[in-house]
Amino acid sequence: MSTWNDPLSVNRLAQPLLQRLLDDASQLRVSVQRDEFGVQIVDAGLEAPGSVEAGLAIARICLGGLGDVHLRSSTEDGWPTWVEVHSAQPVLACLASQYAGWSLSATKEETGGKKFFSLGSGPARALAGRETLFEELGYRDRADTGCLVMEVDRLPPPVVVEKVLRDCALPPQGLTLIVTPTASLAGTTQVVARVLEVALHKAHELGFNLQDIVSGSACAPLPAPGADGLQAMGRTNDAILYGGRVHLVVKGELADAQRLAQQLPSKNSADHGRSFADIFKDAGYDFYKIDGALFAPAVAWVTHQPSGRTWQAGGTSMALLRGLWLEMA
Amino acid sequence: MSTWNDPLSVNRLAQPLLQRLLDDASQLRVSVQRDEFGVQIVDAGLEAPGSVEAGLAIARICLGGLGDVHLRSSTEDGWPTWVEVHSAQPVLACLASQYAGWSLSATKEETGGKKFFSLGSGPARALAGRETLFEELGYRDRADTGCLVMEVDRLPPPVVVEKVLRDCALPPQGLTLIVTPTASLAGTTQVVARVLEVALHKAHELGFNLQDIVSGSACAPLPAPGADGLQAMGRTNDAILYGGRVHLVVKGELADAQRLAQQLPSKNSADHGRSFADIFKDAGYDFYKIDGALFAPAVAWVTHQPSGRTWQAGGTSMALLRGLWLEMA
Amino acid sequence: MSTWNDPLSVNRLAQPLLQRLLDDASQLRVSVQRDEFGVQIVDAGLEAPGSVEAGLAIARICLGGLGDVHLRSSTEDGWPTWVEVHSAQPVLACLASQYAGWSLSATKEETGGKKFFSLGSGPARALAGRETLFEELGYRDRADTGCLVMEVDRLPPPVVVEKVLRDCALPPQGLTLIVTPTASLAGTTQVVARVLEVALHKAHELGFNLQDIVSGSACAPLPAPGADGLQAMGRTNDAILYGGRVHLVVKGELADAQRLAQQLPSKNSADHGRSFADIFKDAGYDFYKIDGALFAPAVAWVTHQPSGRTWQAGGTSMALLRGLWLEMA
Repeated sequence: MSTWNDPLSVNRLAQPLLQRLLDDASQLRVSVQRDEFGVQIVDAGLEAPGSVEAGLAIARICLGGLGDVHLRSSTEDGWPTWVEVHSAQPVLACLASQYAGWSLSATKEETGGKKFFSLGSGPARALAGRETLFEELGYRDRADTGCLVMEVDRLPPPVVVEKVLRDCALPPQGLTLIVTPTASLAGTTQVVARVLEVALHKAHELGFNLQDIVSGSACAPLPAPGADGLQAMGRTNDAILYGGRVHLVVKGELADAQRLAQQLPSKNSADHGRSFADIFKDAGYDFYKIDGALFAPAVAWVTHQPSGRTWQAGGTSMALLRGLWLEMA
Repeated sequence: MSTWNDPLSVNRLAQPLLQRLLDDASQLRVSVQRDEFGVQIVDAGLEAPGSVEAGLAIARICLGGLGDVHLRSSTEDGWPTWVEVHSAQPVLACLASQYAGWSLSATKEETGGKKFFSLGSGPARALAGRETLFEELGYRDRADTGCLVMEVDRLPPPVVVEKVLRDCALPPQGLTLIVTPTASLAGTTQVVARVLEVALHKAHELGFNLQDIVSGSACAPLPAPGADGLQAMGRTNDAILYGGRVHLVVKGELADAQRLAQQLPSKNSADHGRSFADIFKDAGYDFYKIDGALFAPAVAWVTHQPSGRTWQAGGTSMALLRGLWLEMA
Repeated sequence: MSTWNDPLSVNRLAQPLLQRLLDDASQLRVSVQRDEFGVQIVDAGLEAPGSVEAGLAIARICLGGLGDVHLRSSTEDGWPTWVEVHSAQPVLACLASQYAGWSLSATKEETGGKKFFSLGSGPARALAGRETLFEELGYRDRADTGCLVMEVDRLPPPVVVEKVLRDCALPPQGLTLIVTPTASLAGTTQVVARVLEVALHKAHELGFNLQDIVSGSACAPLPAPGADGLQAMGRTNDAILYGGRVHLVVKGELADAQRLAQQLPSKNSADHGRSFADIFKDAGYDFYKIDGALFAPAVAWVTHQPSGRTWQAGGTSMALLRGLWLEMA
C-alpha cells in the first residue's frame, strides 16, 4: 500500500537520471571523472563541449526526478526551439531541488588562487538543508547519494567540495558535481529550464502559500548561448522574462489565486521592457539592486482549483527577443 | 518470426504502464491499496489529490498500451496546455479499451446506501466483453490481469466489484480499479485524452467501417477541472467539441473517406456553438436526449491512404473556450 | 572515467531501439522474419501495412541511436501533424548513419528477374564504409550487429543481401534489413524525418566544415503517403523543401556561419516555388539533373556559438503544401 503523501527523495529519484547521463556521456558530449577525493565530476561545458541534450538531462536531474523537461521545435516564426517543463510536484522539484539557492564560496586564501563563488542547485541542497527555505518547505532529504549542479566556468576548489561533502553528510564516492557554465549549450539550456522555478520563486516572494501550489507547467524559448558569461546570463534571463509562459494550479483562497496571477508576470516590474543586460548594467552589475519583481515569466495563467477559475496576465515580447537574439542572414 | 497481425493483449500491454503508475504513486499524488477482496484500488482524485501527470498515465493505461499521450505547452495565446494522443492501433486502443462503454450500476438495495452508476473504461472491458461493440470489433482479450478505469467520485460498492471480477474471470489479486472523478486534475486530463476515441466513436456511429481506420492522431486543450462534476463534464466535452483536432488515416472507398471528413466534426450538430453545459441543461440533464452528432472533435482531417487524398473539415472555437474558461487577471 | 569524445558505435546504439521495434512488431503493424541466409528482415510496408509510429522507430534506428524523433500535433491550421528531430551528434547521426548514400544495385542477370536499385541508409553503412563520405567524416564503426534501411517496394535480391553481408563483414544472423516503401505510412514518416539530414547534406555540398556542426534541431510537416512511389517521393521532398525548418549550432569562422544561413534554405534554387513532382517531371525524371541547391529545408536558423550570433533565412510555403496535399471536405 502506498499513499499519495509518502515521502519522496529527490536524490534517489534523480539517481537513475544521473546514471543515464553518465551512460550517455560521449553521446551528450560531456566528460566524467573522479577528483582527488573520489567525488564524481561531470563536465558539461568546461573542457567538454556539452550539448543542448545534456542540458535537458541536467535539468531533469536538477528537478530531483520530479519534472519532465523536453525540447519542442516551433512551427511559428517567433523562435525555433523551446524548452518545456511540467511537474506534478512543482514545489519539491523547483524549490527543494532545482533552485540555485545554496551559496558556496571560497576566499583567495582558501583557494590559494582566485576567489570562488557559486550558487549550488539540484537535489543535494535538500541533503544539506543549509537554506532557511527548507524550514518553510518542511522538507529534508536523506539518501546515500547526492547530486549538485554548479553553474560556473571552472571546477570548484577542494575547500568547497569538502564543505559540500560535510554539509550533505556524504562520503566522496556518494557525491556527483555537475559543472556547466552559463555560456555553454548545456548551461544555457538548464538555466532556461528554470522557467517554472522562477515562477515558484516569485510566488514565494509574493507571500503565496507554497503548499497551495499543486501543479506547474511552463515553457520558454531557448536562445543561443551568449559569447561570454555576461551575455549568456542576459539571454537566459530575457528568455524567461520576455518569452516565458507558466501555468500554475493552486488551492487556497480565491482572492490569493487571482492576486498571484496579477502579480506574477515580469511586467509588474518598472524595469520590464528593457534587456536584462541593460538593466544589469544600470544596476552596476549588482544582482541585488535589481527589482525582484522582474524575475518572473512573461505570461502567467493561474487556475484556482476549488472554484475552477483561471486568470491570465502578462504577455510575451517576442519582437524584443528577436531583436536581441537574431539577424536576417 | 512475428507478423503484423499477431494478436495484441490490451491488458498485458497496459501492465508495465500500470506498474509505473504504482511505482510513482507518491510522485503522481495517487494512493494505492487493496480492498477487502484483495482488488487493487488506485485513488486518483478521491482522497488522494491526483495530478495532471497521473491523468496522462491513466490515459496510457486506458488505451491498453497502444497509444502515446503527452502534454504540450502552447506558445500561442489561445490556451496554454494541450493533450496529444497518437496511435498506430486506434480502433483497439480507443474502442476495445479506452471507450467508457461498460455500464456498471447497483441499486440502493444492492449497495445498502446510495445507488451507483459508472461507465467502466480501459482494457478490462476487453476481458469481460459485455458490450455488443466487441462482436463488431471481433476482439476479445485473455490475460491474467486486468485494469478498469472508473470516472466516479466514490469507490464502487462490493456488488459492482464482484460483477467486474466475475465478468472478467479474474481473481481479486488480478484486478486493478483506477478511480478518478471528472472534477479532478487526473480525471479531467484522462477524459480530454479521449479526443481520439470520441472521433472513432463518431465514425462508428456514422457507419464507417472500423477495420478501415489505420492511424489516428489528435489533440485538445486541457481545461482547469470544473468546480464540481457537472462543470467538469461540461468543460471536458467543450475541450473536445470546440478545441479538439483529429487526423485519421483510412482505407476503403474514397467516397466513404470524404464523407467521413464532412460528417465527423462537431459542427454537423445543430447544437454546435453553445457550451455543453447549456446544451445539457436544455436537454433536461439527460445525456441521451443530446444530438449524437455533437460528440466529435471540432476539426477533422481524413486521409484516404489508397488515393493519397486528405480532406479537412470543421474548425475550432477557441474564443468560445476562452470565454468559458478564462478571465483576465 | 569517460570523456566526451569517446568513440560512439551507431550500430550498438541502434541495437536497443531495433529490439524495441521487434518487440512491438504487431503493435506497429510490421512483420519480422529470417530470410534463407538467416538475415533478419523487417517488413514495414510491403506485405505488412506498417504505421507512422513504425516510421518514427525506424528513423531513430536510422539515426544510429543519436537522434530524438517524435510526432507533434499542431494547433494551427497549416497542417495537423509534424515530425521533429533533435540531435547532439548531428553529423554522426545524419551523415554517418541516416543518409541514404550506399548505392546497392543488381542487374537483371544477377537477380534473375527485374533489376534492383536502392540507396541503403542507416548504421550498417558505417560498417561497410563504401562511400567516400566516410573518409571525410573520419568515422568507421565496428560492431557485431548491423542494421540497414532500404526504401524500396520489394525485398532485396540475394545478390544484394550477400554484398551487404560481405561489405559489413557480418554473419547473416548479425544483419537486420528494414524494408519500407516511400508510399507507406512508415516509409513517408522515416523520409520526412530526414529533414535534419537534408540540411547537413546541403551544408556539406556548400563546403561547410562538418566538424564545426555541433547541434541540430529540425521539423517538417508529415504528409499523407502518396498513392504511388512517384507521388510519395514528391510529397516527402515538398515536406522538407517547403515546410522544413532547421536550427544548426556551429563553430568555426563567423563569416562561414552567416554564409551557411544564407545559402542553406531551398529558396536558393531557381526551381524553388514549384512542386517537386513538377520539377522532377521537367528534369525528365532524372534526379541528377535537378539543381542540388533545391534539396534543403525551407527555413534555416544558424547559430555561431563562439560569437553567440544567430541568423535566420528562408521561409515556409504552407499555402503551397496545403494546395498540394489538402482539399476542403
